[in-house]
Amino acid sequence: MTKTVGILGGGQLGRMLAVAASRLGIKTHIFEPLPDPPAGDTATKIFSASYEDNGALVAFAKSVDVITYEFENIPTKALDALEKIKPVFPQRIALATSQDRLVEKQFLESIGLYVAPYAPVDTLEQLEEALETLGTPCILKTRRFGYDGKGQIRIETPGQAKTAFSALDGQSAVLEKFVRFEREISVIAARSTSGEITCFDPGENVHINGILHTTTVPAALPNHMQTDAVLLAAKILNALDYVGVMGVELFVGKNGLLVNEIAPRVHNSGHWTQNACLIDQFEQHIRAIFGLPLGNGQRHSDAIMTNLIGDDINHLEKHDNFALHLYGKSEVKAGRKMGHIIQLSPKSS
Amino acid sequence: MTKTVGILGGGQLGRMLAVAASRLGIKTHIFEPLPDPPAGDTATKIFSASYEDNGALVAFAKSVDVITYEFENIPTKALDALEKIKPVFPQRIALATSQDRLVEKQFLESIGLYVAPYAPVDTLEQLEEALETLGTPCILKTRRFGYDGKGQIRIETPGQAKTAFSALDGQSAVLEKFVRFEREISVIAARSTSGEITCFDPGENVHINGILHTTTVPAALPNHMQTDAVLLAAKILNALDYVGVMGVELFVGKNGLLVNEIAPRVHNSGHWTQNACLIDQFEQHIRAIFGLPLGNGQRHSDAIMTNLIGDDINHLEKHDNFALHLYGKSEVKAGRKMGHIIQLSPKSS
Repeated sequence: MTKTVGILGGGQLGRMLAVAASRLGIKTHIFEPLPDPPAGDTATKIFSASYEDNGALVAFAKSVDVITYEFENIPTKALDALEKIKPVFPQRIALATSQDRLVEKQFLESIGLYVAPYAPVDTLEQLEEALETLGTPCILKTRRFGYDGKGQIRIETPGQAKTAFSALDGQSAVLEKFVRFEREISVIAARSTSGEITCFDPGENVHINGILHTTTVPAALPNHMQTDAVLLAAKILNALDYVGVMGVELFVGKNGLLVNEIAPRVHNSGHWTQNACLIDQFEQHIRAIFGLPLGNGQRHSDAIMTNLIGDDINHLEKHDNFALHLYGKSEVKAGRKMGHIIQLSPKSS
Repeated sequence: MTKTVGILGGGQLGRMLAVAASRLGIKTHIFEPLPDPPAGDTATKIFSASYEDNGALVAFAKSVDVITYEFENIPTKALDALEKIKPVFPQRIALATSQDRLVEKQFLESIGLYVAPYAPVDTLEQLEEALETLGTPCILKTRRFGYDGKGQIRIETPGQAKTAFSALDGQSAVLEKFVRFEREISVIAARSTSGEITCFDPGENVHINGILHTTTVPAALPNHMQTDAVLLAAKILNALDYVGVMGVELFVGKNGLLVNEIAPRVHNSGHWTQNACLIDQFEQHIRAIFGLPLGNGQRHSDAIMTNLIGDDINHLEKHDNFALHLYGKSEVKAGRKMGHIIQLSPKSS
């Protein structure tokens, strides 16, 4: 019998998950409130409905074998409804942890990992106190709903506290000490229902305007640090009894590795695996949530992944030295992720 | 504006073409008379109708930008209807040439290539005469509708002529001298609307019961023969002013290369490109027919592709040293292509 995966969210990550599912002979059903979602082109079926539409959620859940998602901010009530009918992976605890920056940091510390010095901020007084304790510069981040640099305010001097606080508009936040790091890396790790774990090699990320620009593999790290990064990611997945692929973003500083944040899903910084590994992050995720043996995630080549943002897709000059991945979005918008390219070179180490 | 490719045929080749189109941000519409086609899981839209249904053909053609196909035996009348509305690639001449073994051999000879000695057979007398001229063993092949070893009868002695002829059941045939070859190889070649050509490295094929079992790359050939094979394939594509991917099957004998047959479509013996090249045969085909620059078809790894026939998919033991490709067929049947696996190793030469 052919199996079906249900995916909450119809963006490019859902689209690429559908491609991976197709390779494994699995059908894809997408749940997405917005019209004409990128994943809709490639999915077997689309449920076009709101997350408040309980009937649609039930029909969606009944039509699939396993449910997963491509974004973190899924309404709790929708999850309640879905979980009653079919398993949802990654599980609730991973979602709850990563949805809230404060909970996330507390969890990471609780398992012995390092994060940037931080303090919770609900009032202006707390912010002023925290700025005194941590010193400047700092970054004030909303606890929830932040992505691609959204919901972040940099504070250079204590005098900026008031302006920054009012910009929060009542949202709970976390003040983070700005860490002078040498580089940002990420580890894409997978853990299956059987507890098996595999990690891809750490990639080195460069952001522009808060949006990922390139991921380069291998990261320029000493071997022992590559190993540390992978072990640390595995520790996080085990601690959460996690099922699926997770993106773990790390800062590399003078004193070692700090965890920046975790994303309980396939991750932009893992796109390089599509062309540089036998099994990519999308297929690894599908394998994990279906309890299939995880694939070999070793890279056969070095890779540079470059995001195509907004108008970038109209300025591609040479087509023959990279793999092109486009998301089929009908409208080009500034800051919108339209696709990415992957360049390979022979494996260096 | 998002583009749409129309594919005639909803089997695994159509499914994998749809995956390649998805990567390039292109939608896929499938035309397929049979219910529940494998490509339907992954395509944007399915036109489920007969090739005699002119209205459905017109609606299909109007809904897409370019039309292509995954099998050769498309009814002429359907092509007539489609071609009036949208371009069909590969073109009619390639289809007409490859659909008829006699026409194919005559074409190949006309451009200076070698084929196995042959003679047309429409009557028992012609067969007996041809057996005398060519000598035994020979293979009697129907001129049309043969694939995976179907429509082929081996003749060991002249005395078998009558039985073999009556097995043709009135179909026109070609008698082919059985060639003692060292190996069979194939070249997957692509030519775009601009005339640009790229070829993948020749793969070496092993058949079991007339069905492709494995393709191994690189083929065990001296370098000059690899080059000859590629040049020869390019010559065929140019002679036909071809657009798209073609599979060219060659015999390697003591006296050099003989062309066995050509297939005007993506080819089972090119599946290895999915994991061993930056751009695979499916994406190369989509690029070619849309007039996009062809991708880099260099292989980064050596590869062995093994077909999973019938029950094979229930006997996969290890999952971690190969890439698994399944076609999502709901029913396992003996002799049915259910999927394939690809094993990689570091590039040898």
